[in-house]
Amino acid sequence: MMGIDPGLERLGYAVIEMEKNLYRVHGYGLVSTRQEDSVPLRLKTIYDDVRQLVEKYSPERILMEQLVFARNVTTAMVVSEVRGVVMLLAAQLSLPLEEIAPSQLKRAICGNGRATKSQIQRSVQRFLGLAEVPKPDDVADALALAMIGAMRR
Amino acid sequence: MMGIDPGLERLGYAVIEMEKNLYRVHGYGLVSTRQEDSVPLRLKTIYDDVRQLVEKYSPERILMEQLVFARNVTTAMVVSEVRGVVMLLAAQLSLPLEEIAPSQLKRAICGNGRATKSQIQRSVQRFLGLAEVPKPDDVADALALAMIGAMRR
Repeated sequence: MMGIDPGLERLGYAVIEMEKNLYRVHGYGLVSTRQEDSVPLRLKTIYDDVRQLVEKYSPERILMEQLVFARNVTTAMVVSEVRGVVMLLAAQLSLPLEEIAPSQLKRAICGNGRATKSQIQRSVQRFLGLAEVPKPDDVADALALAMIGAMRR
Repeated sequence: MMGIDPGLERLGYAVIEMEKNLYRVHGYGLVSTRQEDSVPLRLKTIYDDVRQLVEKYSPERILMEQLVFARNVTTAMVVSEVRGVVMLLAAQLSLPLEEIAPSQLKRAICGNGRATKSQIQRSVQRFLGLAEVPKPDDVADALALAMIGAMRR
């Protein structure tokens, strides 16, 4: 299960599978793009890097964070462009793609649909037994997504 | 010059080049997707079809309509997903992609930034000497985009 927290500047990803009722973390990190590049070029970087990650880890599915009504419409439009590229990639590779609303993810991880970023980070650390708090938020969110996705199976 | 009016249900395209100060219309039409398909699959259809059109017509550039603040945020997010796929394709094929705001396009075609859809359709018909009014709006907009793009050159 690959979790993806989409963004143009930074996209968080994590790959987690359930093995004998335990989470096994295969990998996690960030795909970053350079502000000085054009948006089409940055989208190509994201496409190429995520494609490479999918080929490396061979997840069976992707769980991506949904975009709910955003205060900042410009940000929502940019994140949607990235989401479009990830959805295209999933369809091209015949990977089922599921989505989850941020509040639903928070409830599943912290028991509270309004949990803060640092609460999510600490929950993810505890559940996965990580030595350090996962940073930045994008990575913690991707880990939370992959965990929930792996558990749902 | 390929003009693209992006949309998930219908994407308008048109290819126009300037030859001896005359517009030469190479082709135009719609890429449509089925509502019963998943969004990832619909985005893949758009990617595949636009890619085929680019390979058929070999435009040197693409002019795509920009998305300005939309009243309907959900629509804006869906159109942005399509825009992301078109931008990715342009980067993959090394095609320069330019954008123009709807009001700027209307001003260029009708002399009025608030022109109605039917005014745009009639202007495009007149400028290009088409036998019939181009329909639907998505196609008329794509023709307007390709005209303005070809003229700018």
